[in-house]
Formats: sequence, structure tokens, C-alpha cells
Amino acid sequence: MVAMNRSIVLASRPHGEPTAAHFRLEENRTPTPGEGEVLLRNRILSLDPYMRGRMSAAKSYAEPVAIGAPMVGATVSEVAASRHPDFHEGDVVTGFGGWQDFAVSNGRGLRKLDPEAAPVSTALGVLGMPGMTAYTGLLTIGQPKAGETVVVAAAAGPVGSLVGQIAKLKGARAVGIAGGPEKCAYLTDVLGFDAAVDHRTDDLPGALAAACPGGIDVYFENVGGAVFDAVLPLLNDFARIPVCGLVSGYNLTELPPGPDRSPVVMRAILTKRLTLRGFIVWDFADQEEEFLSEVGTWLRDGRIKHREDIVDGLEAAPEAFIGLLKGRNFGKMLVRIA
Amino acid sequence: MVAMNRSIVLASRPHGEPTAAHFRLEENRTPTPGEGEVLLRNRILSLDPYMRGRMSAAKSYAEPVAIGAPMVGATVSEVAASRHPDFHEGDVVTGFGGWQDFAVSNGRGLRKLDPEAAPVSTALGVLGMPGMTAYTGLLTIGQPKAGETVVVAAAAGPVGSLVGQIAKLKGARAVGIAGGPEKCAYLTDVLGFDAAVDHRTDDLPGALAAACPGGIDVYFENVGGAVFDAVLPLLNDFARIPVCGLVSGYNLTELPPGPDRSPVVMRAILTKRLTLRGFIVWDFADQEEEFLSEVGTWLRDGRIKHREDIVDGLEAAPEAFIGLLKGRNFGKMLVRIA
Repeated sequence: MVAMNRSIVLASRPHGEPTAAHFRLEENRTPTPGEGEVLLRNRILSLDPYMRGRMSAAKSYAEPVAIGAPMVGATVSEVAASRHPDFHEGDVVTGFGGWQDFAVSNGRGLRKLDPEAAPVSTALGVLGMPGMTAYTGLLTIGQPKAGETVVVAAAAGPVGSLVGQIAKLKGARAVGIAGGPEKCAYLTDVLGFDAAVDHRTDDLPGALAAACPGGIDVYFENVGGAVFDAVLPLLNDFARIPVCGLVSGYNLTELPPGPDRSPVVMRAILTKRLTLRGFIVWDFADQEEEFLSEVGTWLRDGRIKHREDIVDGLEAAPEAFIGLLKGRNFGKMLVRIA
Repeated sequence: MVAMNRSIVLASRPHGEPTAAHFRLEENRTPTPGEGEVLLRNRILSLDPYMRGRMSAAKSYAEPVAIGAPMVGATVSEVAASRHPDFHEGDVVTGFGGWQDFAVSNGRGLRKLDPEAAPVSTALGVLGMPGMTAYTGLLTIGQPKAGETVVVAAAAGPVGSLVGQIAKLKGARAVGIAGGPEKCAYLTDVLGFDAAVDHRTDDLPGALAAACPGGIDVYFENVGGAVFDAVLPLLNDFARIPVCGLVSGYNLTELPPGPDRSPVVMRAILTKRLTLRGFIVWDFADQEEEFLSEVGTWLRDGRIKHREDIVDGLEAAPEAFIGLLKGRNFGKMLVRIA
């Protein structure tokens, strides 16, 4: 009996919002690991906004997914077979297994997980790429100081929620922006943010100004668009802006209508002496151990909280991903592969 | 006989390009220094683009000049009378004497000059604020490395010309943008830039791309507008952009027509992991001694060159300043006060 491998492949490149039609479920024979390789049985798939970029052919920091190739994605996987000296059948690892049941890996980028230390799903969220994105971007670029105000959008998500909680641990004020009263209540009541702003309000600039009476010293940018426009006039001199994502623009098919506001941005950078710095988490790969140690400790000590939003079945991944881009998830978006 | 003090005051705030009508020459009695003060007789006045910002009421990093008040400006001055222990009649100093014959100072911000060490006018250019702007912004934020490409506009001016020459001293390629063939020839033939691009060309993006076959690693931003638009697609990953001025936008009365290009800028920051950082020279005040020592040595050793564009008479200052904003000067713009 040959096990079959279901994969969700990129069927075509979206122009604007992706739909289910841009994905296709395929079944192929499960691959066989060669010498020095392992066969991974994926158990949990992580869905993250960056995947929208991989669906496009536009130049970015990573190669696009080829048409007909499985969608990329981080997974928690079991080693189903190993011809690699460092991994054994039954090991639980995290790596880039993709949107599929099985994947073959040469071991690069695989990290063994200890299920006793933390639930293995955290390797895709608070103790994984999203958590490390928050940790490295906030601390290395944002550098929040006690008494300063840190603002983050998509604040109920895995990156934003950790940005706010680390800001609090550093003695700063944390202000989160999220969609809807339930997420806003979660920010203040569960995560301990000082204030939450619902971006669905009629007056985002006014609501944000009211939540930031001392201005904004660090804005962790992961959405762009209307939120950035509301943040810009509130930034204090010498504010720092780690630019980690621009999810509000990922589905843009053309530039917004005029006037051209780029001179407003540049003038603010100059007169307020702002620092804007783009990054991706792998730029800070050398901080991984420190991140795992420090955030792992905070998590075990109950000093930070996290939340997961799990759907069941590989076939549910496209709809869950489309919802993620619209902010429909509440917590780290995961797919439990059957 | 009471000496009269001629001052050029701000008559009204320009909306768009300043004209001679926004300035007014006044004559008043020369002020008398009080205890702890000195009377300065201004000899040379520096004209610099930042002064356009002081003519506007818009919030910036410094207070606007009040209507009816003398225009601010750095000067080389003689101490005409002193009731300050650190200064004596006849001392030559640099300070902020303003657009006038005489000024009273409490000594703060005054620095004595040694006419033997360097021509005193250099205290307003290569060894003054413009030189220190180039030195601190390029080295602290731009951080050019050997083999990298550094691009600067207004490259025949006092800031740009030093940016390019320091880039060369650090082993980088220097590409300058300037207006007209004479300035471009000066960049390559006199200052040793590797390439010069005339911004009056029909195809600035194409000409700049041809001058930067390896892309751009550092863009020292002092003009904005069309030059920035041409630079953006050529920036390499991890490029650094010290934002020191935006002279092309200083006379803008409204935002340029659409589309809104700010998402293009933000996307480039993200995907190329750019660093943009605004600064003014006084943010790096603690580097002044190091700057004076290092650039002073380079100047004496003939490793850097500089050029001055001098007009005669205080009354010539408004026209010279208006021309400066249009790039009509060739070298550091100075006014020799009679």
C-alpha cells in the first residue's frame, strides 16, 4: 500500500484578493527520502500573511511559489522515516513542510521540539516565526523604553499580541488596534494592553489620538494603509517604526487615488527624525536562541499569553487563509492536518 | 555717532516660492551688549536651504522666524565689543548672527575661529554645519562600506560634495546628481566622483541606472521628489537612506497629483529591508570635535576640496537665497557683508 500525499498547490496567481479558485488540491504518491533526508508527516500547518506575497510573481525578499507547486508554509511535523543521522522516526520537528500531508527534507531548517517544554503548536506562533518577528523587530528596531508608547495593529494576532505584551514587560504603554469589540476587549482584559482601538470606528485618527495622549514612540508596522495614516501625525520626534508587514496592501491591484502622499511621509521622517526600517525575521536569525530562551521563560512563567485559531483538515486551508487576510481569525491561524 | 544696524527681516510668509517681497531691509540702532554678552559684527552670512522652513509657520524641528524678526542664519563675525569673559574684541567667531550687520550674543553657540588653521569662511561650509551634516549623516546613518555605491543629489553643493568625497575616502563608489554639465564635470573632474548625472536629462531614471550598475547602497536624501523616485527602484537590499533635506518640496503648496505613491515607498522599505532615518545635524552635536578634527585634517591634506559661491552685500541676500532654492548657486552660498 502506497500512502498518498495530498498537496494544496498554487493553481494561478491572484490579481487582487485570492479566492479558492487560486488553489487546487492534488494527490500524488508520497515521496521517498533519499540518503541524508527525512520524510515528514505534517501535523499542523501555519497560515501567515506573508504567503500572499509568495502567490505573486512580483519581486520580494523571497521567490514566488511556482504555479502548480505546493504552497509554502511552516509546519509541525513528525519524522515518518529518516535517512538523516540527526533525526529519528517519531521525532517531532518544526520546519517548512508546506500545505500538504508529507514532505521530504534534507534537515536544513528543521528544529526538534520537546513536547514537554511547551505545546508543539507554539512552535508556529508565540515560540515560532510570528513570535520571533515580534521579539526581534520590537527590541532591535523599536527599542521601547519605559514610559514610551508602543502602538501595534493586528494586535490580536500572533505578532501584534506579543509586541504589546513585550512592550509592557519593558515598562512601555501598549496600545493595540484590532477589528471589533471582542478582540479589543481581549487586548485590554486578557493581554493587559493599556488601550485598544477598534479600526472599524468611524474616526480612527481621533480614537487613536485619544488612546495615545503622549504621542507614539514606537509603531510596529504590519498593516499599512489607513492605520499608518492615522499613526503618522501622532509620532513623536525620534520615533522608531519597524516595518514588518503591510497586509492592508497585499491585495491592492493599483495604487490608491491621489494626491500623492509620499511627500507627507518623507517630510515626517525628516522633521520628526523618524527611523523606518524594514525587516524580515530571518534578518535576525542569530537571535533565535535568545528569543526561544527568553520568550519561552515568559510563557512558562505566565507573563505572556497567546491564543490559537485552529481549523481542521488540509482542505480547509485556502478558506482559512483568505479569511486571515481579512482579519477573520482570532489568534494564531493554524490548520490541523488530519 | 551711533552705528546703525541693517537687518533683513521676514516681511511675510511665502505660500510657495519666496520672492524679494517676503523680505524687508530695516535699519535700527545697533544693540548694546549687556553683562555677559558680546556684540558681533557679522562679516559673512551663510545661506542654507533649511531657512525656507523657518519662513513657514508649519511645525518643524525648529521655531519659525517671527514676522518682522531678522532672518536667522549662521555667520562668521568679529567681536566688536565684549562683556563676556571668554570673548575679546577682535576675536573671530562663528555663531548665529542672522541676516544683519550686528547681533548681540550671550556666548552660547559661539565658537572661536583660528584664521591660521583654515580660511574662516570654511566655518560656514566644509568645516561648518553643511560639512558636519554630510559627515554625521553619511557615516552614522549611511555607513558606506568599501565597494558600495553612494548616491547624493545637489552634489555640487556643500553637503553633497562632501558626502561624495567622504564616500570615496571610505572606498565606496560616489555618484552625484547635479544640474547642468558644468556642475557634473566638476563632480567627476575636480572632486573625483565616479559618475555624475544631470537631473535635467529627459530620462533621469535611465541615466541614474546607467551610473549605478551595481544598484545603490546608500542614498543621502537632501532633495526628494523626482530624484527619490528615480533612486527607489535602484536601491539594494539593506540600503540606508539618511534623510537630511527635501529641498524639492520646500516650496510645494499642495501635494502632487495622484496616484498615492506612499504604498510604493512602504513596500520598498519592507521588501528591501531599507533603513530611512531623518536627522538634523544637531542630533549629532557630540560628534562636532571629531568632525572638525577629521575633516579639518582631510582639508589641510588636500584630500577633500570645497567651493564657495559668494555674493557681496547684505542687501543681496534675498535674491541669493531665492536662487539657492532653485539650484543657481555653484558651491557653498555665502554673503559677504560690507
